[in-house]
Amino acid sequence: MVKIVECVPNFSEGRDQKKVERIMSVIKNNNEIKLVNYEADADYNRTVVTLIGDPEKMIDALMDLTSVCLKEIDLTKHSGEHARMGAIDVIPFIPISGIKMSECVEYSEILANKIGETFNIPVFLYAEAAKQEDRVKLPTIRKGEFEGMEEKIKNPHWKPDFGPAKRHPSFGSVAVGVRDFLIAYNIDIETDDEKKTNQFARAIRGSSGGFQYIQAGPVYLENRGHTQVTMNILNYKKNPIYRIFETVKMEAKRYGFNVPSAEIVGLVPKDALVRSLRYYYGVENKIFDKEMSIDEVVEGCIKYLKFRDFDQTKIIDYFL
Amino acid sequence: MVKIVECVPNFSEGRDQKKVERIMSVIKNNNEIKLVNYEADADYNRTVVTLIGDPEKMIDALMDLTSVCLKEIDLTKHSGEHARMGAIDVIPFIPISGIKMSECVEYSEILANKIGETFNIPVFLYAEAAKQEDRVKLPTIRKGEFEGMEEKIKNPHWKPDFGPAKRHPSFGSVAVGVRDFLIAYNIDIETDDEKKTNQFARAIRGSSGGFQYIQAGPVYLENRGHTQVTMNILNYKKNPIYRIFETVKMEAKRYGFNVPSAEIVGLVPKDALVRSLRYYYGVENKIFDKEMSIDEVVEGCIKYLKFRDFDQTKIIDYFL
Repeated sequence: MVKIVECVPNFSEGRDQKKVERIMSVIKNNNEIKLVNYEADADYNRTVVTLIGDPEKMIDALMDLTSVCLKEIDLTKHSGEHARMGAIDVIPFIPISGIKMSECVEYSEILANKIGETFNIPVFLYAEAAKQEDRVKLPTIRKGEFEGMEEKIKNPHWKPDFGPAKRHPSFGSVAVGVRDFLIAYNIDIETDDEKKTNQFARAIRGSSGGFQYIQAGPVYLENRGHTQVTMNILNYKKNPIYRIFETVKMEAKRYGFNVPSAEIVGLVPKDALVRSLRYYYGVENKIFDKEMSIDEVVEGCIKYLKFRDFDQTKIIDYFL
Repeated sequence: MVKIVECVPNFSEGRDQKKVERIMSVIKNNNEIKLVNYEADADYNRTVVTLIGDPEKMIDALMDLTSVCLKEIDLTKHSGEHARMGAIDVIPFIPISGIKMSECVEYSEILANKIGETFNIPVFLYAEAAKQEDRVKLPTIRKGEFEGMEEKIKNPHWKPDFGPAKRHPSFGSVAVGVRDFLIAYNIDIETDDEKKTNQFARAIRGSSGGFQYIQAGPVYLENRGHTQVTMNILNYKKNPIYRIFETVKMEAKRYGFNVPSAEIVGLVPKDALVRSLRYYYGVENKIFDKEMSIDEVVEGCIKYLKFRDFDQTKIIDYFL
């Protein structure tokens, strides 16, 4: 099975469009990995890049990106609303298919080592790749930001996992890590009663005692004239989409609210959809083949999960 | 509104039936509180007593119980399979109706103070009543048991919350605390496939990413010839019965399994049932009155929640 990872490097330039394009050119000229999209934010002065591909090719692309950011970005001259400690601030690896979390951790270590050795940049491993408990959360590592890191990194407790224990004068430092894929998922509720929609959000979200890997809240969509339960699914294997959809429909029934549709924001792995379609195929006693085509997945999602504004370009595997 | 608490004192005698009866007589002769049941376990050498009633009357009854246990039980001569540190080992308060957790904490402190002052017994506050983080869990306090407590209690870190910092020579020490009501609830699945039933348990239980306050597992009932999802509901307000029942039915649908019935083991507060009936009344657009009679609750539970072997004697409020 082909190994596919997603990487979402964030680099610290979001205002100078020419500079952003010069940086992005090393990605655009790379045919070995797929650029899904990139978004430059002027307020944050930061650009978020979404890439997918083979993990070894990904490492090459990220080394090229590091090299060009080292040349183009000087953090001593950088300001923006988003906290940052490096020219590339953070690089998360996300397992997409054919690859385990633990393998992604290995790849993140290979990249971290290369960045440290090649460019003399301090690298911290975070999230699933973290080697110390207080490096799991990125903000803990990043506290003090570029400016504070000059002193912080001299403290033996904050010795980087790779590279020198000395802040790079213009690049700063970078966090490399591994996290699970996150699905941004919204369910439409045919009501303008945000309070009741909040009840449904509370019923399913982990922080209120609901499903552990669900973050959820209510939102009223002015232009559509109805509410949504808006969610992040942090682990679609343990909290599959169908279970969330069916539970919200069940809750909405008590007020007679219609739940006509739902949407995916950004990308979703085919695997997450196939797992949910399997449920409905079971209910309807239909023959299920987990190797179903992307077209069949799209059709099933529209029919059973009531996805709107949905097509194959929302499915990561389409780009592979 | 009348304040009702449940208390479940555990005392360290479960073999000598005459002694158990002498101890229980102070409860049986008390008309101010309701004895729901008591179970003496010979292997554990321990008796678990379930009481409900007014919290102030409860404190009087528990003082009487402490007094008689002090007279009847000598821990230097006690052995049994269950860990214990006192003649009465633990006294949890559980809010039932008209009373908040925080008020129960106050009552638990009143009792703890009285036991300490009157009988010179060291008292530790645990669970919701704990004043230190490592006193939340009873086993942490009890570690070392009666025998080890002689030294442990001299450590300033283990100074008791009330009473002397000295183990009582024959009684030992006691933990007094507050916890939420726990509902033991089982859902019947018309299959003998324990593996699939385990899938449903995993879908809903907190430890697998499901609902936070649900403990669940599969069980095959030899004499009935089908499986159950067997559960504890640790917080019925955040994880109401109807939501669990409907979610399990939804999951079972994928295999076409029938979910004909469910059962409550032990007692359930009326409030927990009324909250769930409210859902079904909503779905059916029926007028809902939360002051419904116990008979109406029983009827609704049989109709909507498919309770079997259920009558008013399963409802705590019936005894009040």
